[in-house]
Amino acid sequence: MAAARARPCSCESRETATLTTGNLADRVYAGDPRALARLLSMVEDGDELLPAVIKELKSPADGARVIGLTGSPGAGKSTVTSALIGVFRGRDLKTAVLAVDPTSPFSGGALLGDRVRMQEHATDPGVFIRSMGSRGQLGGLAAATPQAIRVLAAAGYQVILVETVGVGQAEVEVASTADSTVVLVVPGMGDSIQAAKAGVLEAADVLVVNKADRPDTQATVRDLRAMVALATSAWKPPIVTTVATSGEGVDELVRQLDRHWAWLADSGERDRRRLARARDEVEALAFGAVRGRLRVPDELAARVADGSRTPHEAAEELLASIGL
Amino acid sequence: MAAARARPCSCESRETATLTTGNLADRVYAGDPRALARLLSMVEDGDELLPAVIKELKSPADGARVIGLTGSPGAGKSTVTSALIGVFRGRDLKTAVLAVDPTSPFSGGALLGDRVRMQEHATDPGVFIRSMGSRGQLGGLAAATPQAIRVLAAAGYQVILVETVGVGQAEVEVASTADSTVVLVVPGMGDSIQAAKAGVLEAADVLVVNKADRPDTQATVRDLRAMVALATSAWKPPIVTTVATSGEGVDELVRQLDRHWAWLADSGERDRRRLARARDEVEALAFGAVRGRLRVPDELAARVADGSRTPHEAAEELLASIGL
Repeated sequence: MAAARARPCSCESRETATLTTGNLADRVYAGDPRALARLLSMVEDGDELLPAVIKELKSPADGARVIGLTGSPGAGKSTVTSALIGVFRGRDLKTAVLAVDPTSPFSGGALLGDRVRMQEHATDPGVFIRSMGSRGQLGGLAAATPQAIRVLAAAGYQVILVETVGVGQAEVEVASTADSTVVLVVPGMGDSIQAAKAGVLEAADVLVVNKADRPDTQATVRDLRAMVALATSAWKPPIVTTVATSGEGVDELVRQLDRHWAWLADSGERDRRRLARARDEVEALAFGAVRGRLRVPDELAARVADGSRTPHEAAEELLASIGL
Repeated sequence: MAAARARPCSCESRETATLTTGNLADRVYAGDPRALARLLSMVEDGDELLPAVIKELKSPADGARVIGLTGSPGAGKSTVTSALIGVFRGRDLKTAVLAVDPTSPFSGGALLGDRVRMQEHATDPGVFIRSMGSRGQLGGLAAATPQAIRVLAAAGYQVILVETVGVGQAEVEVASTADSTVVLVVPGMGDSIQAAKAGVLEAADVLVVNKADRPDTQATVRDLRAMVALATSAWKPPIVTTVATSGEGVDELVRQLDRHWAWLADSGERDRRRLARARDEVEALAFGAVRGRLRVPDELAARVADGSRTPHEAAEELLASIGL
């Protein structure tokens, strides 16, 4: 994508000149996939024209049902995502996938393997699949994900599946912007313990043990059950076993997701989560703006490195330099 | 640890009252492990007295050789760490381990399994092992890790092994504060591909394929070699195969680490990295201070959630409220 933007005479660039922020919003509303792709690139880049376009959209994220998927590498997130696309398309709901990769080097680019696994939906006009990278800014991704959800909802997508690569804290935060968060583990290899270590289980609304045709499945389910029993939250995450490649267990996963969706509405939790999401989004945007102004001058870094200034003293100087 | 602090009459609390920041620094210098543990808790908590103590220490992190270890869950980081402790203790170097977990729920607490794997060193007074959590602040950990390194160096530790749990971006950032970063993968299961996805390989100075008695070892080595061949950096990360549980390959790992350490000095890269680390540390501290002031009021979040305010407008209001 970066390469396409760099070529001065590409179609996209020529088009850019004629796109006002107003008609870009209109075209997204009208369901133009190229306008949608362009607006999502603007979200990813933190484009300076973005605020004006978002204002035109005035789309509450409420329009869509957002489901997050996270879990260890190799747990089968893309296969489960692909199965869920099939289910929601069967209900005639327009479905979007946002595959978020909180690392810079692969930003914007789709992951080959994942694309392959979702290929069966590639020609369905009711499905939109998009990878999004952080472009090196963790704070940026925390702001970009809710904005991308906002844009996809405005474009008419009724279900948005947010899939994250990796199992760290940043990935959990991204997945947690969803209404319902699915955490996937695979049997054996201490995977469930590792997920607990990474704090991933606490974010789960539904737990999935995928590749449940493997020998250690029951032990993993037992481990998870023991951990869930310790939870003090009002919603106890159900544990579902799946073999996503064959579709086994996907119906039960969807049943549990529907049950959670109903619970969110009944309990008032849905509004609470969306309020929290709005707060996080605003904080991340404000934070990103501040980060742009907080650059440590070379000589100040050198003084900290040689020990003549403590890092705290240097931080105070830096804050004072922007009037804080 | 949190529990200990909460009990009003515990030994530690009584002692706190008599500890001036000055004598705490003195005691850390003198090698008092309790003073060291207490100062590291202050680092972890972002204690308000910390700047004064750090100022007393005036310890350039240059005093220690810092080695970061990261990799997929189950790759054997703790076992490799334990083997490295043995090697550096054999050279009569005081060695510290900082096991960093960038997630809140397990902050401060050691991970049971990891402790067990390092137990053989538990009674060696030349070894100090400490877990550190983020206490829910990602930015906080980016600042806390270099500070903890600073404190451990002041306490006389000559080698500091920084091990991270998880494979996300935050974990890579933590591991990258080291002079040399070791990335571990295990054969098969697409582990090396997954590491590449998570951007972990780019941070590697030495690549380790651990559990190299497994069948897919050579395929994984080939994958990694192909990826390393694409690197344009001056240092090409060597690929070492180990079976850390039996000690196989650990000598070669150490040889490569020593080679990298020599290269760092010869190339000037060591100074560049330490300058970058100082810059990151100052930025993270300044950033943490700003974050404390950027709180979105409830009614502003509600306006964003109901669509009457865009997130960008709300962020501008928030920044204006603190004079930015």
